[in-house]
Amino acid sequence: MATKGPIVEQIVRHPGGFPVVGIIGGGQLARMCQPPAVGLSLTLAVLAQAPDAAAALVVPASPVGPYDDVDTVREFARQCDVVTFDHEHVPPEVLAALEADGVPLHPRPSALRFAQDKLAMRERLGDLVDCPRWRRVDSLEELTELGTEVGFPVVLKTPRGGYDGKGVRVVDSPDAVPDCADWFERAAGDGLLAEEAVDFTREIAVLVARSPSGQAAAWPVVETVQTGGICTEVIAPAPDLDDTLASRVTEAALRIAGELDVTGVMAVELFQVDRDGEPGYVVNELAMRPHNSGHWTIDGSVTSQFEQHLRAVLDLPLGDTRARAPWTVMGNVLGGAEPRHAELYGTYRHLLARDPGLKMHLYGKEVRPGRKIGHVTVCGDDLAELRDRAAHAAGYLEGTIIE
Amino acid sequence: MATKGPIVEQIVRHPGGFPVVGIIGGGQLARMCQPPAVGLSLTLAVLAQAPDAAAALVVPASPVGPYDDVDTVREFARQCDVVTFDHEHVPPEVLAALEADGVPLHPRPSALRFAQDKLAMRERLGDLVDCPRWRRVDSLEELTELGTEVGFPVVLKTPRGGYDGKGVRVVDSPDAVPDCADWFERAAGDGLLAEEAVDFTREIAVLVARSPSGQAAAWPVVETVQTGGICTEVIAPAPDLDDTLASRVTEAALRIAGELDVTGVMAVELFQVDRDGEPGYVVNELAMRPHNSGHWTIDGSVTSQFEQHLRAVLDLPLGDTRARAPWTVMGNVLGGAEPRHAELYGTYRHLLARDPGLKMHLYGKEVRPGRKIGHVTVCGDDLAELRDRAAHAAGYLEGTIIE
Ligand SMILES: Nc1ncnc2c1ncn2[C@@H]1O[C@H](COP(=O)(O)OP(=O)(O)O)[C@@H](O)[C@H]1O
Ligand SMILES: Nc1ncnc2c1ncn2[C@@H]1O[C@H](COP(=O)(O)OP(=O)(O)O)[C@@H](O)[C@H]1O
Ligand SMILES: [Mg+2]
Ligand SMILES: [Mg+2]
Repeated sequence: MATKGPIVEQIVRHPGGFPVVGIIGGGQLARMCQPPAVGLSLTLAVLAQAPDAAAALVVPASPVGPYDDVDTVREFARQCDVVTFDHEHVPPEVLAALEADGVPLHPRPSALRFAQDKLAMRERLGDLVDCPRWRRVDSLEELTELGTEVGFPVVLKTPRGGYDGKGVRVVDSPDAVPDCADWFERAAGDGLLAEEAVDFTREIAVLVARSPSGQAAAWPVVETVQTGGICTEVIAPAPDLDDTLASRVTEAALRIAGELDVTGVMAVELFQVDRDGEPGYVVNELAMRPHNSGHWTIDGSVTSQFEQHLRAVLDLPLGDTRARAPWTVMGNVLGGAEPRHAELYGTYRHLLARDPGLKMHLYGKEVRPGRKIGHVTVCGDDLAELRDRAAHAAGYLEGTIIE
Repeated sequence: MATKGPIVEQIVRHPGGFPVVGIIGGGQLARMCQPPAVGLSLTLAVLAQAPDAAAALVVPASPVGPYDDVDTVREFARQCDVVTFDHEHVPPEVLAALEADGVPLHPRPSALRFAQDKLAMRERLGDLVDCPRWRRVDSLEELTELGTEVGFPVVLKTPRGGYDGKGVRVVDSPDAVPDCADWFERAAGDGLLAEEAVDFTREIAVLVARSPSGQAAAWPVVETVQTGGICTEVIAPAPDLDDTLASRVTEAALRIAGELDVTGVMAVELFQVDRDGEPGYVVNELAMRPHNSGHWTIDGSVTSQFEQHLRAVLDLPLGDTRARAPWTVMGNVLGGAEPRHAELYGTYRHLLARDPGLKMHLYGKEVRPGRKIGHVTVCGDDLAELRDRAAHAAGYLEGTIIE
């Protein structure tokens, strides 16, 4: 088999029969698997995009190679006991080659496709859980049709590869439809997802984990606050959440995990809606990996989503998902346009002095405006105070709050 | 300068002005600094004893080299912004060479010597805090003299290099003195420490951190339970501890840290004693690094001792040392003679199934009978239950509890 050279260095395993977990992609999600791997005595191997990728900075076995090259990924997988993912962009043909080689992949490609493709997801989930009205659209005419049917505004999405709101567009009125011509051109016949703009009261998320042998566990339902399509704040648990709705959405997430045979951690993003005075939900999308809405679990839960993901993909028994404090608030740190100090280290030093209880999680990424470069977490009893602290810290690091 | 070759690979730093912390020695203490380093965006570099040392398994920049070779350590230090220690065995001449090079060492050699040498420690602490009656002994005759003065049994210690009770010997009566001849021979004129056998009610420990600019913080006082000279259990906070005694020992530890100009984390091991019905204390020994009595802080405190040590040696503001639960119990896992399964991984899998709330911390070491290979932690409200769970888990991994 032709390969691009010896991309995988020798992996030094932990003695005692402990396995190697391979992660394709070296972003912050792979990076944040390293702390629990240390405690669990698991060896990580990361197929990184660059030698200074977020995970490569902290994981010894981090060969660099393209995640979309079959030979590279195959060679990487050969040294791992199981393989999982930092992102959803590994192409189907690469996944198929790994499956043909008998590599234990988690989640399996048959499940992963519903997180990779929003059209496939809408199609599959329709019978399982409440979803917005939607259709695949291949032309401006079809988009107008959907708008006429469900009412404007409608939301247009690229089915694959979107994140942080990139790939999501609100079409306010029939007049705005022609502006979408470029997206149809780029879709090049693959179709786009168009759906009703849900009139939600807030966004919530449910995080679950499921192992190959079928054990499953769910964390408390959280509220996610998005600003400009990017998640900026997560509150755990979701304040004032109706008990019945909490059970229903948790049950919905566990049902999806079971029906789709998901392995590893899965996040379900939902819209909370008002149904004639009763709280209801509509599923927005799925992620089959540790997810931003679960970063609070590192400091706020007995078992973090990263530890749980490792346990799940190895078919180890799952850990306790209970919260460790009445409230946990997570604030995303985005790269700011104007850093306060010449370097981020100076800003962070100030912040550690100001809030000794703040838990800092930076990803080792170069600052670029709007890029997620880290998150902060605070736990405690007083939700209003925690939200202030998290927002202050995130804003201070970003440069939007100056004192 | 002659070196033994290119021992230090290129260290890939975190961008944004974040420093590199060098750790001499690649044992479990260096290993457990990696999880908080990930969050804090700090790059670790570890001078490891072997490629499969506990820390080398999880820290990318882990060159292998002897910690007692001046050239090796100098070359290592050159790529680090500060240097600290996994153990206390770095020889004075190596420390002196680093100091001469202007390497920021934490703790400084002038403080570290009191943790390296129990005779120097007894000498220095006598005026600061309550200590047992002691003397330096260079002969069997002097040992008998001390015994006559303070009463048998007495405790004889090698001043340097002891750990886990190796280097500690109880001399029960004058008749047993001649048996100590081999120790005097090995001491080769350096002297031994002899001290009264303290009639303690229990052993306790205080953990503090202090930064170069003088900020200091203390964790709650803990009870440490030793079995055969090895710490087997730590309870945080120490149950039923008298408030006044808690303040006095915390104050004593902070005084030692201040007077000795300690930088980084320092543990003070103490004996709680009964003084005519009033609780008192006697200092046993010091460790100037993260310490076994502080492992509970990883899961049980807002800021772990490993995070705090990194913050302290970098002169970053210190973190909140409060406990996160009413009780935390840590159990040390020792290597067992007869593993239940062919490999430790099998035993651990059972245990994760039995106790989903157990936090597992294994060090990646080969199992050898009596060797510390990990620890487990549980947090909660019910101390008796937590102690049972921790003891079960440790015993099960060790092989002394079979179901
Ligand atoms: N159908 C919809 N109705 C209303 N808002 C929507 C809808 N779909 C997406 N959004 C908004 O856009 C955000 C990003 O959309 P999402 O499909 O989750 O894309 P991404 O993959 O970038 O996270 C959502 O969190 C929500 O705020
Ligand atoms: N003076 C003493 N009186 C009574 N017990 C002692 C005394 N010194 C040590 N011990 C016992 O031996 C253990 C180990 O002694 P220590 O000096 O702490 O050695 P190490 O460096 O191996 O930890 C202590 O934790 C305590 O249980
Ligand atoms: Mg989304
Ligand atoms: Mg001791």
